[in-house]
Parts: sequence; structure tokens; C-alpha cells
Amino acid sequence: MVNLIDNEVLQAFATYATIVVLKMLMMAPMTAYFRITRKAFANPEDAGVHGKTPEDKKKMIKTDPDVERVRRCHQNDLENIVPFVLIGLLYALTGPDLSTALLHFRVFVGSRFIHTVAYVFIFPQPSRGLSWTVGMIATLSMAYRILNTVLLL
Amino acid sequence: MVNLIDNEVLQAFATYATIVVLKMLMMAPMTAYFRITRKAFANPEDAGVHGKTPEDKKKMIKTDPDVERVRRCHQNDLENIVPFVLIGLLYALTGPDLSTALLHFRVFVGSRFIHTVAYVFIFPQPSRGLSWTVGMIATLSMAYRILNTVLLL
Amino acid sequence: MVNLIDNEVLQAFATYATIVVLKMLMMAPMTAYFRITRKAFANPEDAGVHGKTPEDKKKMIKTDPDVERVRRCHQNDLENIVPFVLIGLLYALTGPDLSTALLHFRVFVGSRFIHTVAYVFIFPQPSRGLSWTVGMIATLSMAYRILNTVLLL
Repeated sequence: MVNLIDNEVLQAFATYATIVVLKMLMMAPMTAYFRITRKAFANPEDAGVHGKTPEDKKKMIKTDPDVERVRRCHQNDLENIVPFVLIGLLYALTGPDLSTALLHFRVFVGSRFIHTVAYVFIFPQPSRGLSWTVGMIATLSMAYRILNTVLLL
Repeated sequence: MVNLIDNEVLQAFATYATIVVLKMLMMAPMTAYFRITRKAFANPEDAGVHGKTPEDKKKMIKTDPDVERVRRCHQNDLENIVPFVLIGLLYALTGPDLSTALLHFRVFVGSRFIHTVAYVFIFPQPSRGLSWTVGMIATLSMAYRILNTVLLL
Repeated sequence: MVNLIDNEVLQAFATYATIVVLKMLMMAPMTAYFRITRKAFANPEDAGVHGKTPEDKKKMIKTDPDVERVRRCHQNDLENIVPFVLIGLLYALTGPDLSTALLHFRVFVGSRFIHTVAYVFIFPQPSRGLSWTVGMIATLSMAYRILNTVLLL
């Protein structure tokens, strides 16, 4: 039987992958928070819960810069965190050193927390750009190791 | 060799993950159906297939509320179903009881089918919100089990 | 220990999955390239890097058809490549023949490269539609094999 308990690299991967996916999942309640406080909804049935008169509800179907910012951050997570988990699992199965693997996982996960803070709190560039680049380098480095170890075309 | 046939939890995971990913994939033809029937396209080369005169084609480059609704549902699937599959695979590798695992998988997959129906057919809230929350709880519960079992930071 | 080196189907999967995820990741720098050359940004702090006067910066917060096209292509990758990797991993674990597995992986990955070229360089339809369909058929065929082999509901 495959068991995570037998393999420290897989355990480390499971830990960091779970943490960073949880971070991504938290973007949804954050979007809901901004939608409610900014009264900016995408669906009439959602506005209906928060508006009283029909005109109220109609006005609440709008876009809001803060909502759109959180949604872009969420989208960037989908574009980067999902590839990290997919590549990271295959990387973990190539049998890297635990210390090298931990370095990759820690750098990626750390960079994505910084990326989210820089995005949501509108830090001046290049803070967001740099954090994105660091995460990307971690993923590319793992992809290089996979292709270098198991290439079968 | 790793083999799904040796492990019932992994078999159950493979079954439910495949079903719910297929559900997500079906959002694409549903979007295409609404784009064609509502004559609302994003790409000029797509409108070109369905419009005859140049003015016809230009008018078809527009957004439509029904198309946008299906697209938001698809996006919500990406934001929730992909994390379920990533977390669920790691969860299955922690060796949970089959009955507990099945409960998680069934609740999540059921909640997402209800979510799609509630979204596309515009059920009044909180039906969509509740189905989303139930799915999220299933994923969070599996994430908790992973961190509780294999935490290696 | 689970090890990719023991299983040729998993090696082939790791190779093709890594290549096609790298292709998806490359959509981000391509979007950045179009944002910079078209001077069309979503975030004021990004426009700030490229604009000099405040009016300059304000004008750069806009959508551009070329940027939106690359973003739609990226989104289509998320909607199709992520499911391929998730389904493909489970498929690889059902123990298919190497030659059958390679056929699925090659057809899917080839179809997605063609899809990107057809999307970004605006090939006339049905080239993009056909490449999308071929990739979808490869994924559906693998999903069918999974459900046929390990169904446990």
C-alpha cells in the first residue's frame, strides 16, 4: 500500500501543499467579505439577500475595485499554486533529498503568502512581482529535476 | 509498483475525483451552448462561424448574462473542485478508514452537483451558498486530517 | 517507497504532465509581455512602474483585446490542462499499457500546443475548436478507463 507515513519527502510535500491550498481556499471568503462590505455582487440572487428594495438590489450588481483586486489575487493563486502542487507531487516521487525538497516547498509557500499580502494591501512594485518570480523559480526548479530524472517521451 | 487495485480508499477517491472532474469539464460545452444560443462570443473568429455579414459578427462580440453565469459557475468549480482533488489524494494516502473517506468524497461530490444546479437554474439563496459551504467543510476536514497525520514542516 | 523510477507509465506521465504544465505557466509571462507592450494594466501599482505622469498611469488601467485573448487562452489551459493532469495521474495508476498511455499523453499535449498557437495567432475556426476537442477526447478516454477499472462508489 502507498502510505505517506513511509516517506519523509512526501510528508513534507503533503504538509506544505495542504497549507498553500488552504491559503488559496481562503481567498473565497475574502472575496465574499469585500462583496458584502462594498455591496458589489455578481448574481442578482445574492444582492437580493442584502438589498431591500428592487432599486437597491439592482445597484448592487456592479464591479468594485477592491473585489476585483481580491479576485485577481485568487486567479493568480489558481495559475501558480495548482501547478506547484501538481509539479511538486511528481518532484517528491523522484526521490530528492529531504533538505533540498524542504527548501523548494518553503520558498514557494513563503513567496505565495508574501504575494497575497503584497496584492491585497497594494504594496508598491516590485514587491508583488518579486514574490511571484521567487515562487515561479521554485516550481521551475522542481520541473527541471523531474525532466532530468524521468524523461520518457 | 503503485497500483490503485491494491487500495480501496484510493479506488473510491479515483472514482469520485473522476466523476467530479468530469462534471467540471461539462461546464465548457454548457458555456458553448449558451454562447451559440445567445449569440454572445468573446472571439471574432468564433462569431465569424455563426454570423453572416460583418455587422452581424461585430454585434455578436458581447457579454450575455446567461453566458457569464455559466462561466462564474465554471470558475467556482475550478476554485473548489481542483483543491478537493489535490487535498483528497493526499488525504487518501494518509490511510483513513474506507467509510470515513467515502463519507467525505460523497458529501463533497454531492454538494458540487447541487451547487451547479442551484447556480445555473438561479435557485434563491441560501441554496447555492449552503451547497458551497458543505463542499468546503468536506475539503477542510480532509486537510485537517492530513496536517494532523503527517505534519513535517 | 513510492518511486517514479520503478514504473514506465508513471515516468511517461511525469514527463508529459510537466511539459504541458510548463506550457501553461508560460502564459503568465506572455500576458505580462502584452500588458507592457499594449500599456494595458489591471493594477494601478503596475501602471505606476511604466507610466510617468498621473494621467499616463490612469490611461494605462484599461483592457486590451490582445491581453484579453492571451488571458482567455490561459484560462482555457486551467480548465483543460489541470483536469488532464489530475485524471492522467489516476489513469497512470490503473496500470495501462505503456504504448496506450503514451498515445493519450502525446495526443493531449500535442493538441494543447496547437490550441495555444491557434488561439494566440488567431487561426480561423475550426482549428482552435478541433484542437480543444482532441484534447478533451484524450482526457475523457482516460476517465473512462479509470471508472471502468476501479469504480467504487
